[in-house]
Amino acid sequence: MSRPTVNPASLAELAQFAMLLEVTARGKPGNIDRCHDYEDTRLDHFLSSAVLAKPIFSAIEAGNLSIGEAMRDVVARTNMHRGGNTHFGAFLLLLPLIAGKGIAGATELVKKTTVTDAVLFYKAFGLTQVRVRTEDPMDVNDPASIQRLKDEQITMYSVMEYSAPHDMVAREWTNGFALTRRAADLLFAQKDGVHAIPAMFLTLMTEYPDTFIAKKFDEATAEEVMYKARAVRDGRQTLAAFDDECIKAGINPGSLADICIAGIFIALLEGWQWDC
Amino acid sequence: MSRPTVNPASLAELAQFAMLLEVTARGKPGNIDRCHDYEDTRLDHFLSSAVLAKPIFSAIEAGNLSIGEAMRDVVARTNMHRGGNTHFGAFLLLLPLIAGKGIAGATELVKKTTVTDAVLFYKAFGLTQVRVRTEDPMDVNDPASIQRLKDEQITMYSVMEYSAPHDMVAREWTNGFALTRRAADLLFAQKDGVHAIPAMFLTLMTEYPDTFIAKKFDEATAEEVMYKARAVRDGRQTLAAFDDECIKAGINPGSLADICIAGIFIALLEGWQWDC
Repeated sequence: MSRPTVNPASLAELAQFAMLLEVTARGKPGNIDRCHDYEDTRLDHFLSSAVLAKPIFSAIEAGNLSIGEAMRDVVARTNMHRGGNTHFGAFLLLLPLIAGKGIAGATELVKKTTVTDAVLFYKAFGLTQVRVRTEDPMDVNDPASIQRLKDEQITMYSVMEYSAPHDMVAREWTNGFALTRRAADLLFAQKDGVHAIPAMFLTLMTEYPDTFIAKKFDEATAEEVMYKARAVRDGRQTLAAFDDECIKAGINPGSLADICIAGIFIALLEGWQWDC
Repeated sequence: MSRPTVNPASLAELAQFAMLLEVTARGKPGNIDRCHDYEDTRLDHFLSSAVLAKPIFSAIEAGNLSIGEAMRDVVARTNMHRGGNTHFGAFLLLLPLIAGKGIAGATELVKKTTVTDAVLFYKAFGLTQVRVRTEDPMDVNDPASIQRLKDEQITMYSVMEYSAPHDMVAREWTNGFALTRRAADLLFAQKDGVHAIPAMFLTLMTEYPDTFIAKKFDEATAEEVMYKARAVRDGRQTLAAFDDECIKAGINPGSLADICIAGIFIALLEGWQWDC
């Protein structure tokens, strides 16, 4: 009788695990988590998204899909429920990080994305309710934008360069995944696995205004949230009260949550002991 | 450019989703869940187990593994962390239910398990810290038991028949997965998807003493827990207070949790709208 082959976790499995760890982490202000659901979107939708995304992660790990194709496929598959956009930004980070087997590889890969990838990306966007800035001339929800991509030969990388000033997730494509790196480093610096993710998340909140908040409200609000996070860090307000305030005001640091997922993935890839 | 193929969820994916829905459900007294970790075992371990089990689920769905082989492989793979036994009982239910594509198929399949399956099952057990009755002459932790299986040609089904009086998970193999059926039916009877799982779990607690509690403490304690669950159902105690009492006493209805997972899987398979 043969011995069981215990295969180590694949990159696709690490990415899925990162998504699950992030959404179930306790005490990330303003996000959906173990103890908060939103009206239309529940924790269950995020779990469903993590389950359904996995085959696309495996396919891109195996080199069978371009980044544009993978975005289209993963958004189409995870859009099968009513919870709306759950992981769009996380996918934008995870897909190149999986395909590139880490930050260095991803940084090179994204530069090689094509016009076709850009068109597929816009089509993926069209399947979601992803929040954009209302005054954006390259609004992804406008069909004329797709024609413009082809006419002007705009690649997916160029789209991210264009979006970077107002979108911290797109910005990662252009700056070597800098905040992803920071997030992973923060995890490695933690001694306590249980509290590592919320601690990392709060630290990121104290350092960077969240562009998802800026799009929903404005940049002043995003900065105010950053200062309030510092008050929590410095002990002038409790985490619970801050979380409660964010939830009541509809303030959701969704782009930092996406970066948090990417950071957890990189940390796991690099051997982070989540189990300590 | 091709349209994306949106494949519906496989049985393996439904089983993984069932595991995730169960462990993140709010308000299941005494279990690890969103708001409770135990000292050595955390929610994260259950998430890891759900991620790592998936390829074995896919393999048995495709007919590539016997039930015994699948138990051995899934326990070996999910045992890679320090959280101990997380899903042993759930696997014992899910593997035949996936392979049989439902309860009817599973009921027939389990009867056809072999002596080899029994040996592999005992070896899987040996990899875990699964709780057994201390006075059990067929103690799975005793190597002489494996020799006895071979000498007396005891099949895996026979092992479950032998264990059924004291183990409600093993009992499912012998009674047509009766509690799994009940659990699924309870979910379909719910109007509210958000509260369906905890409501189903509490109902099961009011109807059946949990054999995991009986093994850890004694049958009187397991019955007492059933009566206390009825007090909650009847409004004489709050769910929160009952949950707190269970946690403090180390009372964990782990076998009902396994049946809960199986029930969720069957409900999903049969089209339950978890998203309502």
